[in-house]
Amino acid sequence: MERFVAERLLRFSDCDPSGIAYFPAYLNLLNGVVEDFWRYLGFSLPELIKGRGIGTPTVQLDCQFERPATFGEQLTFLLSVVKLGKSSLHLAHEVTGADGTKWSARQVLVATSLTEHRPTPWPEDVRGSLCRHFPALSAEREAS
Amino acid sequence: MERFVAERLLRFSDCDPSGIAYFPAYLNLLNGVVEDFWRYLGFSLPELIKGRGIGTPTVQLDCQFERPATFGEQLTFLLSVVKLGKSSLHLAHEVTGADGTKWSARQVLVATSLTEHRPTPWPEDVRGSLCRHFPALSAEREAS
Amino acid sequence: MERFVAERLLRFSDCDPSGIAYFPAYLNLLNGVVEDFWRYLGFSLPELIKGRGIGTPTVQLDCQFERPATFGEQLTFLLSVVKLGKSSLHLAHEVTGADGTKWSARQVLVATSLTEHRPTPWPEDVRGSLCRHFPALSAEREAS
Amino acid sequence: MERFVAERLLRFSDCDPSGIAYFPAYLNLLNGVVEDFWRYLGFSLPELIKGRGIGTPTVQLDCQFERPATFGEQLTFLLSVVKLGKSSLHLAHEVTGADGTKWSARQVLVATSLTEHRPTPWPEDVRGSLCRHFPALSAEREAS
Repeated sequence: MERFVAERLLRFSDCDPSGIAYFPAYLNLLNGVVEDFWRYLGFSLPELIKGRGIGTPTVQLDCQFERPATFGEQLTFLLSVVKLGKSSLHLAHEVTGADGTKWSARQVLVATSLTEHRPTPWPEDVRGSLCRHFPALSAEREAS
Repeated sequence: MERFVAERLLRFSDCDPSGIAYFPAYLNLLNGVVEDFWRYLGFSLPELIKGRGIGTPTVQLDCQFERPATFGEQLTFLLSVVKLGKSSLHLAHEVTGADGTKWSARQVLVATSLTEHRPTPWPEDVRGSLCRHFPALSAEREAS
Repeated sequence: MERFVAERLLRFSDCDPSGIAYFPAYLNLLNGVVEDFWRYLGFSLPELIKGRGIGTPTVQLDCQFERPATFGEQLTFLLSVVKLGKSSLHLAHEVTGADGTKWSARQVLVATSLTEHRPTPWPEDVRGSLCRHFPALSAEREAS
Repeated sequence: MERFVAERLLRFSDCDPSGIAYFPAYLNLLNGVVEDFWRYLGFSLPELIKGRGIGTPTVQLDCQFERPATFGEQLTFLLSVVKLGKSSLHLAHEVTGADGTKWSARQVLVATSLTEHRPTPWPEDVRGSLCRHFPALSAEREAS
């Protein structure tokens, strides 16, 4: 399975008074990784938002936090594309550190028209790029 | 069903360039509501963390975002206690605005010894306060 | 001297792994206090930004941090209006806790047209409200 | 003059509903750059804080914001060491984008014992590393 990989250092600002990662800070990091993922696909979020009027709000997010991470740890974010719907995109995230999986998440994004405030189909070039980078998506599409 | 209720104004800093709430900022607000909930129970988090060496990390969090909220909206956070385990606490959150439910979440916290870094049973006075404020928890306990 | 006063609890999320307030979190709190100050004047920021196309970016900020504040402390923010220019507004902030002044700041905001991206004079009703709430400003104006 | 240089992308989470950088987010980025600066000197903050019980709180911070930066812009942070005191460190920051200086800051940090909560002299190896990386500091020291 293909995965988009991003490295992050757990910073001072990401940790709380008990010395470990603050979970909203984790989700802030995750959002930045998804931002980098869009750039990797060839579509920067600023271009999608400002240029095409398409936002990608998160409609569902399920997280499991397994091991604490402390200030200064190096984390690896592994992003898989689970499913590509007409307007939706299902992602699976795994975040690992030196001692194994720190946390994992399932996330559903929906392409949304920022003018009409409702779901809009993924543009063909976005869909094309996703299928090129994650060939299993095309196979699934042909099978359905 | 009893619910702990907290009001929050959606601030400038909680919103993103597309003009709506940024979901990690939502979770930061949620964490503050849970902080207020502990104070309502009679146990401030600073006292639990510094005084008793007990942290309450979130081990699971499932969110559904239904309606966007924009800068300046007044939000109501409704917190229910779903289940009280030996070391765990299951919460359900509903966040509403003028037009209905904005988002909802399920959250599982675990009482954790900050010295041993492992789950520890809820202290008796914490358990007692939870059962006093949420009588359905006691009934469930006697039934089990 | 008149002062706008706001109370804030120093939250878990505002503190860092060394257990004290994280200074960018302090400035986030400060920004929220200024938001409340605009509402107190009768002009909410959402209304200024969305309704009138006027932003109020900070162009200068000088802070002195005197005493650390820890998780759970109650802080009082005291805001004074130092000077009202054609497009600028000079504020002085003092933030106190139980043991005295925690930190203080000088801040200069500039009324800015969000369409032309350049300074714009304060609208007459904004200026009027500032002078009504801080009478010393009117005196200064007449003297100049 | 030697400068420590760090690149940062202005992210979605760093921008506000008016579409430009939110100044507390800027200061959060700045803090991360200073974190990287410590690592460049050979002393990670986790090691200083946890290993040696030395924190480096900011006691003064003066910022001038000149040009707005928008979501997706690449920013260069240029850090200079202005002065090394017995327990203090004076830094100057310049942050540039494609159109010139976005903002600049002066920052004073103080080495602080986390057990005694008071200033402590910089350890000799920290001082040595600063002087090796910024030779002008040694010259100043000999001259004084």
